[in-house]
Amino acid sequence: MTKDEIQSVALRDVQVADGFFSRYADLVREEVIPYQWEALNDRIPGAEKSGCIRNFRIAAGQETGEFTGMVFQDSDIGKWLEAVAYSLTTHPDAALERTADEVIELLEAAQREDGYLDTYFIVKDPKNRWKCLRDCHELYCAGHLLEGAVAYWQATGKDRFLNVMRRYVDYIATVFGRGEGQMRGYPGHEEIELALCKLYDVTGEKKYLDLAAYFIDERGRDPKYFLEERKTRGDAFHWEGNDAQGMEYFQAHAPVREQTEAVGHAVRAVYLYSGMADVAMRTGDEGLLETCRRLCRNIADKRLYVTGAIGSTYIGEAFTFDYDLPNDTAYAETCASVGLIFFMKRMLEADGAAEYGDMMERALYNTVLAGMAMDGKSFFYVNPLEVFPEADEKDPSKRHVKTVRQKWFACACCPPNVARLLADLGSYIYRRKGSAVTADLFIGSRLALPGGAELIQTSEVPFGGKVTFTLRGAAQGFSLRVRCPEWAEGVTCTAPCRKENGYIAIQKDWQDGDSVTLVFGMEPRRIYANPLVRQDAGKVCLMRGPLVYCLEEADNGANLHLLRLPEGEPVEAVRGEGALFGMTLLRAKGRRFVPHGSRLYAPDRQGREEEARLTFVPYFAWGNRDKGEMAVYVRE
Amino acid sequence: MTKDEIQSVALRDVQVADGFFSRYADLVREEVIPYQWEALNDRIPGAEKSGCIRNFRIAAGQETGEFTGMVFQDSDIGKWLEAVAYSLTTHPDAALERTADEVIELLEAAQREDGYLDTYFIVKDPKNRWKCLRDCHELYCAGHLLEGAVAYWQATGKDRFLNVMRRYVDYIATVFGRGEGQMRGYPGHEEIELALCKLYDVTGEKKYLDLAAYFIDERGRDPKYFLEERKTRGDAFHWEGNDAQGMEYFQAHAPVREQTEAVGHAVRAVYLYSGMADVAMRTGDEGLLETCRRLCRNIADKRLYVTGAIGSTYIGEAFTFDYDLPNDTAYAETCASVGLIFFMKRMLEADGAAEYGDMMERALYNTVLAGMAMDGKSFFYVNPLEVFPEADEKDPSKRHVKTVRQKWFACACCPPNVARLLADLGSYIYRRKGSAVTADLFIGSRLALPGGAELIQTSEVPFGGKVTFTLRGAAQGFSLRVRCPEWAEGVTCTAPCRKENGYIAIQKDWQDGDSVTLVFGMEPRRIYANPLVRQDAGKVCLMRGPLVYCLEEADNGANLHLLRLPEGEPVEAVRGEGALFGMTLLRAKGRRFVPHGSRLYAPDRQGREEEARLTFVPYFAWGNRDKGEMAVYVRE
Repeated sequence: MTKDEIQSVALRDVQVADGFFSRYADLVREEVIPYQWEALNDRIPGAEKSGCIRNFRIAAGQETGEFTGMVFQDSDIGKWLEAVAYSLTTHPDAALERTADEVIELLEAAQREDGYLDTYFIVKDPKNRWKCLRDCHELYCAGHLLEGAVAYWQATGKDRFLNVMRRYVDYIATVFGRGEGQMRGYPGHEEIELALCKLYDVTGEKKYLDLAAYFIDERGRDPKYFLEERKTRGDAFHWEGNDAQGMEYFQAHAPVREQTEAVGHAVRAVYLYSGMADVAMRTGDEGLLETCRRLCRNIADKRLYVTGAIGSTYIGEAFTFDYDLPNDTAYAETCASVGLIFFMKRMLEADGAAEYGDMMERALYNTVLAGMAMDGKSFFYVNPLEVFPEADEKDPSKRHVKTVRQKWFACACCPPNVARLLADLGSYIYRRKGSAVTADLFIGSRLALPGGAELIQTSEVPFGGKVTFTLRGAAQGFSLRVRCPEWAEGVTCTAPCRKENGYIAIQKDWQDGDSVTLVFGMEPRRIYANPLVRQDAGKVCLMRGPLVYCLEEADNGANLHLLRLPEGEPVEAVRGEGALFGMTLLRAKGRRFVPHGSRLYAPDRQGREEEARLTFVPYFAWGNRDKGEMAVYVRE
Repeated sequence: MTKDEIQSVALRDVQVADGFFSRYADLVREEVIPYQWEALNDRIPGAEKSGCIRNFRIAAGQETGEFTGMVFQDSDIGKWLEAVAYSLTTHPDAALERTADEVIELLEAAQREDGYLDTYFIVKDPKNRWKCLRDCHELYCAGHLLEGAVAYWQATGKDRFLNVMRRYVDYIATVFGRGEGQMRGYPGHEEIELALCKLYDVTGEKKYLDLAAYFIDERGRDPKYFLEERKTRGDAFHWEGNDAQGMEYFQAHAPVREQTEAVGHAVRAVYLYSGMADVAMRTGDEGLLETCRRLCRNIADKRLYVTGAIGSTYIGEAFTFDYDLPNDTAYAETCASVGLIFFMKRMLEADGAAEYGDMMERALYNTVLAGMAMDGKSFFYVNPLEVFPEADEKDPSKRHVKTVRQKWFACACCPPNVARLLADLGSYIYRRKGSAVTADLFIGSRLALPGGAELIQTSEVPFGGKVTFTLRGAAQGFSLRVRCPEWAEGVTCTAPCRKENGYIAIQKDWQDGDSVTLVFGMEPRRIYANPLVRQDAGKVCLMRGPLVYCLEEADNGANLHLLRLPEGEPVEAVRGEGALFGMTLLRAKGRRFVPHGSRLYAPDRQGREEEARLTFVPYFAWGNRDKGEMAVYVRE
């Protein structure tokens, strides 16, 4: 498949107008992007200093002082500029663009003669450039800046940032590779691979694709580069603590083509797999694509939370092993689900199987949206499926679990990742080849078609099942396929249709003004984890449409573990109120075990079950009321 | 209560001859003590070097070299000599005594002029003596050596070691206290408090009791000593990492009399509480005793595993919060249960309530015995109530859980602690005041009474319920009370008797040769944790007599979480075979969920339940066959 054969749509061709998602897109534009700009400039009272912009000023000689923040602090501005670029694409804003232009000028001023651009090593540790690829995130930061540069060029047509990054990447291409005098290194945190493919797509220069392919294929070979480089650093890494994680943490335990399980740091893993799929599509590398399918299968079948989260342990923020999906100690990082969506987008482009769309939707509607408060002002990094505030406060092994969303974190990875995904959401809804359109997501939007025609989608998802597609204008040979979501138990369609590879192909000769309406069954569903998932034995969770539901203390009182939802009890959909107004909640008759007695161990259960009305709220909306317990799974 | 009023018996007055425990006592004498001696002398091929004896030789100027091991390495020889002393008391052994005498000579040679005796600071870091009480274990090591010295004097009548330690303690008493020029410090790891009370008991010198009382009462006062001393060390602790634990880790968050919950490192906590009870009894300090009762209540009612283990998290090897008793990530250290037994012995002496005996028995028969393999050659430090080997190997948050017992550990705390407890077991069975005897444990033994009479106990516990007491000889005013164990649902007694404070007081005028037999009901019991213990919701465990039972993969196949023991199914006692020969196992008809289907999430359970024969083995005996899963709790 050449890059022109990859089915996708440009963000500029899609306008999102959705009853559910537009509010999130507005929040990103109106709250998150401006807030992050203040944060990057150290202007948030009481917040830890980011130092990000200041680091670039110091690197550019415009200010004196010391480097502030993490070794990967530069990535924040890359992610911010990427989100800004998407926002400018859909919502032009001269003042915001001016701000972005100014910061791009600053980046250019900070760039070294040779193209190098990483403020940590420019300002703080110039002698150790490229000396600890395992920990020091230089290629990771370069990747994020590069994604920002490509997006900014696509959004504005201005090439200053793109040129800065081309100079940097051209220099990187001289440093790394298998040629004489080159370093055989690869990044400790993957990211640049997928960014290089974006640069290849906009420039057409094969050397960028080659560099991405090099980083991917060099990874995990013997002798292990990360162990070799350690020797040059007095036998020490930048973050020696990471050592406990072993090479799996970095997905560098084996050459990528030999890897069969998703392992290590979950964000790194899915960024790598995204880059692998990008390269495989563009080079027609079927072996590499097969590796992507295999790793995706392992996640989908054995290492994925029902909420679309990944990463079972906070130690290394990592995958553990098959069917190990603890609810209360999960890491389930927001960024990892964002990365999973990146990966699934590419698998859709490469393979077009509907189940990739199902996974994308699962991660988007549940974990990613849960990552952000409904007012866009606070964020979860960690998205457990069960929360008991006393444990999260008093059990040190659950200290990573926050029971209320936090304003911003010193390590600002998740909020800007959510921002750039939601700002770019339009490009995830459709794939297109000429006038043949595939709709992967049910998000109200207008898609521009060749020749000035438009496809208009209106959608009630996630709370309703009705989705309508209307064609405006004449589109030669227009055809439409719609993903048949795994959650739809019944589907009706107003036009003749046929199921193909998980998609509903509409059998219709489309004319200007034609509409087709699909209605997906939205009955509440009891969902069971595979019996090999120990943590969920004897338990059930509820879903409706793409949404996973959960119990909250706000509706059900304390001690959620004493509740039970007996088999066979009907579950009904009801309207939410107050903070949950406009949402569909679920309600069922259940049982509450009412404890009496104070013995720690007794020959009787010390209590009895009573009838109780159970209320379930969408998982993405949890934690928007008072602090309290939450549980996705309930005993059946 | 004066020290003479404390009801206890000397080890030398008790001879253990028990069908169940004598084997363990033999193992300690024949396997553990000799093995540990080899370990202390670095003569175990392939094992990490202890360096313990060598450190003393270097300190004594008999060898040159560097200090080996942990900062608390000296404590090992204290615990070893204590176990040796108990062993010599019950089983004289001239060669072993000669070895002990030689090592005591070495300790004396290593002692400094001023009485100081800690090889880490003598050999490695002389400038920092007493500079980091929080982490450096000097007073802890002194306490263990002191316990050894008292025991050795009691066993042999030789006072060399006792005099060495008196010199050391006399010096310590000049260093610490509230007088002018004294340090207001106290130990980071409690232990010396209870040891000082032993020294007080054998010498009658009140200053030792005063020093113990000082350490206890100074603890946790403001300003916090550990924070003050930090300033003198360039604002750094010996183990900076401990800092994350906070003052609760050291039970130094508040003055001990204000403490209401058992917190922090579990071993430290129960050693402290033991010392507090010792001081309270000897000074008649009712307020301090009330604190002990309160802390004991908190453990008994809210922080104790059904196996008598304590310590819910490996992070800080610590208590967490009420009703938090995770089965698979428990720390449940063997040493902590040994310490709990120390504490309960003192509470029995102080208060005489049977429930202290129940807790002692629970810890002894389950966690402590599980800590040692049935051949005495390998040990568990951590005693979880659920083991899934794949998780313990692949989930880094369970790395502390070993699925097979280990030969010996670099930090040799648990094996010598088990050894010194089992070697001293005779002193835990009875309390005596004149000829009034109380039997707290059911262990076959002979107790020497004043005037040459003897009380002989024969016992079938833990597998049978029959216990017989026989008086040999004439004992003026002899009376007998027997603890009525919480596990005995029915009791028969061949003599008239009366229940008093949890004890069965035999109403009898005893004559030479008289016997009384009690039979405790030994029906298998279903035991439920309090409903507020989240981890055990919907689950049950089995007990019979004092023994907790568990499922093992060896009998029940893999995936123990798929098993269920439905309510009402009868449980029968059966004979063990092979490695479990001589034991009573439990058997019941249960259900096994047999999985089919490979979907990670599905609207059905992907399997069906079949009838299954469940076999439960005593928890203390788990892990004596092939490596595999284990679970105490099973879904009901």
